Amino acid sequence: MAESKQARVVIVGCGFGGLFAARALKSTPADVLIIDRNNYHLFQPLLYQVASAALSPADIARPIRSILRDQHNARVMLGEVEGVDLKERWVSAAGARVPYDYLLLAPGAVDNYFGHEEWRQFAPGMKDVEEATLIRSRLLRSFEAAELEADPAERDAHLTFIIVGAGPTGVELAGAIKELAVDVVARDFRVTDTRKARVILIEAGPRVLPALHTDSSARALAQLRALGVEVRLGASVTQVFGGGVEVGGERLGSYNVIWAAGVRASPLGAALGMPLGPGGRIKVLPDCSIPGHPEAFVIGDAAYLPNPATGQPVPGVSQGALQMGRYVARVIDAEVRGVRGARAQGFHYRDKGSMATVGKSRAVVELGRLHFGGLAAWLAWMALHVTVLIGFRNRLAVLSSWIYSYVFFRRGSRLITGLAPAAIRRPIAPATSSAASAADAPPARDG
Amino acid sequence: MAESKQARVVIVGCGFGGLFAARALKSTPADVLIIDRNNYHLFQPLLYQVASAALSPADIARPIRSILRDQHNARVMLGEVEGVDLKERWVSAAGARVPYDYLLLAPGAVDNYFGHEEWRQFAPGMKDVEEATLIRSRLLRSFEAAELEADPAERDAHLTFIIVGAGPTGVELAGAIKELAVDVVARDFRVTDTRKARVILIEAGPRVLPALHTDSSARALAQLRALGVEVRLGASVTQVFGGGVEVGGERLGSYNVIWAAGVRASPLGAALGMPLGPGGRIKVLPDCSIPGHPEAFVIGDAAYLPNPATGQPVPGVSQGALQMGRYVARVIDAEVRGVRGARAQGFHYRDKGSMATVGKSRAVVELGRLHFGGLAAWLAWMALHVTVLIGFRNRLAVLSSWIYSYVFFRRGSRLITGLAPAAIRRPIAPATSSAASAADAPPARDG
Repeated sequence: MAESKQARVVIVGCGFGGLFAARALKSTPADVLIIDRNNYHLFQPLLYQVASAALSPADIARPIRSILRDQHNARVMLGEVEGVDLKERWVSAAGARVPYDYLLLAPGAVDNYFGHEEWRQFAPGMKDVEEATLIRSRLLRSFEAAELEADPAERDAHLTFIIVGAGPTGVELAGAIKELAVDVVARDFRVTDTRKARVILIEAGPRVLPALHTDSSARALAQLRALGVEVRLGASVTQVFGGGVEVGGERLGSYNVIWAAGVRASPLGAALGMPLGPGGRIKVLPDCSIPGHPEAFVIGDAAYLPNPATGQPVPGVSQGALQMGRYVARVIDAEVRGVRGARAQGFHYRDKGSMATVGKSRAVVELGRLHFGGLAAWLAWMALHVTVLIGFRNRLAVLSSWIYSYVFFRRGSRLITGLAPAAIRRPIAPATSSAASAADAPPARDG
Repeated sequence: MAESKQARVVIVGCGFGGLFAARALKSTPADVLIIDRNNYHLFQPLLYQVASAALSPADIARPIRSILRDQHNARVMLGEVEGVDLKERWVSAAGARVPYDYLLLAPGAVDNYFGHEEWRQFAPGMKDVEEATLIRSRLLRSFEAAELEADPAERDAHLTFIIVGAGPTGVELAGAIKELAVDVVARDFRVTDTRKARVILIEAGPRVLPALHTDSSARALAQLRALGVEVRLGASVTQVFGGGVEVGGERLGSYNVIWAAGVRASPLGAALGMPLGPGGRIKVLPDCSIPGHPEAFVIGDAAYLPNPATGQPVPGVSQGALQMGRYVARVIDAEVRGVRGARAQGFHYRDKGSMATVGKSRAVVELGRLHFGGLAAWLAWMALHVTVLIGFRNRLAVLSSWIYSYVFFRRGSRLITGLAPAAIRRPIAPATSSAASAADAPPARDG
């Protein structure tokens, strides 16, 4: 009897891993249920463009139901997953118990404040649409506040933008904010010279883009400096407060501190009580399953899976997540169809290259041994991202937003929404000083 | 000495009235300062398209600084106006005193709950971007909740959408929500048949679109009913609570009640202590000035100015506001240049026609004596709105969003953002019953 009914596959999280797993199960004789707290899949690599007012949230987010509309074995549930019972095989979500035969946990990552959660209120991260629009509103409000401010120190604090962490998110955001200040809003203000705004990128490690090769790091560093971004390497942030940060004993005044120093796995993983690797990631077996639970998999940023040969873990980038998602879908498909041995060959990550953009016509690209920068890299970056965004809402809308934004140096999404963040206006004295390493886990990144 | 310095013109509010006044002062030898609580001018007639997930906020909002970038006599201040001293001639805003020689108050309107402010939490209005995105999130979340709900009464309440007030906002929103349920999301859900969603438009008066002629009302009513909207005329809402409304002694269960029953003038007007007309509007003289203060003007939804011949007040539509804005700018320009008699001819409103759209290929148009409906009216509506939105961000983005949305019956901005509105999920028993008239002041509307 039990054999005759369809296998129930539950996927938790619809980031790159969860979504690509669901789609790869298209022809599998199984009931696929995807649970996410949001009703949309977010193209996270472009979230910094929302924070810097170039794109609207809807340009980079698409309803999950819409993506899976024609996949008839897939259902979608909007809700927060409250718990997982690996033994009894159910997930509790939105107040209901959802039983499964196969479980794919793809809950992603959250910002890592390295034990300083209290810094979050002053230095928001950039993991979701709400945070990105908050950062956008703060940035834009700061230019407004500077225009009205009589006190020079206060004005400088409004015109100083500090990004902590020089992974791809930090580098791209620093470049985009500098361009916003220099090219986009400069002519909008009468008193303030926004071109003098300082953008400071702070990195605890010795180079920017630590996940890339040293030549790309050097190239990106030169591009950032050419753009006017102040890059501080080997500098640890020891304190974040309402009016700035403390770094290497120096206090830098700023009402715009953005946290891009790293991520850790979603707390959902830790809640399972399984052995954790670096960054709170769950240690999985080579087939991405949880030890002792061949029917339960963890993929993406929440999984810790070192390469047996090199010891190097699968990186926390979207390519890692989506490749794991497709791999696990293949395993499940084979087993549901009664094919054995699908797991014999464990997951193997294929590095398809990396890229990061620093600004208009500035980027770095690594494709195998081919490393290059400049305009060619930027065009490659544009081409890839426009292609990937096809089917994402409306390529014409995104493309025309970008042409508008890049060619005319205007940005269409410069809206300050939500309430005024009164809290961040009140400077709070720094308390105890303690070091924060900024290179535990690299920020999630599209390769 | 005083004669040699430039006249200081302060404009409060950057809706249609304030913005068109500022632009009309382009060549005037004066310092123009425009103060608004938002950093953008909002094209309010299309806000219902944000609420119904067809457009993104940035598609219909543009930074004020960006609009006035090349107008060198204009400055912009982001801030809430806290008070006005008509005697000493200053405005207090963002903690500062701003002196003026000429004042233009164009603060607009707020939703009118007719003494039932407590209904706002259950039935948000649609006056700003925050409210529109809140309504969008609630709508979309309701379909999700219906999909998970086992109790039929609860499911019905999630799939019932009640719009109170059948002015242009109510009519357009009702049509757009019905289309969303029937054409856009229907195939996204596996369990729920969203096409059975009820959209109920409640109007206290005897017809929809009371500001238009009776033939247009009849035409719009037929279009709404053809679309499947339930229209209840002569029906007064006597109670709004967490799980629905009470209308004519009947309780209608709904987790989506939207308030479009009317507006009243911004409370800023009342704070001046001047005689008020209907809807809290300030009674102004034929030159739009405040009695006793020829240097202070009120325009748009906040002003009450009856036509001396007909007694009919200037309607609370964007054409009224922008015509008043241009008129006052002409008066100020003349006086600043020492030309006398500019006020001799008071403001005269020119009715340029009205239109409202009910849905794809359904609309009504009135141009003088020419009244028509159907596809021709809808094409006229589209043509006008696309034209008006030119320069608004990016006509290509809006146009492609619309083509996408209308031709493919998909909507790209279906994002649920912000926190889950826990409050509206808890039904609250209706307390005392009291009548609400729904036709005090018509909602602001583009002609």
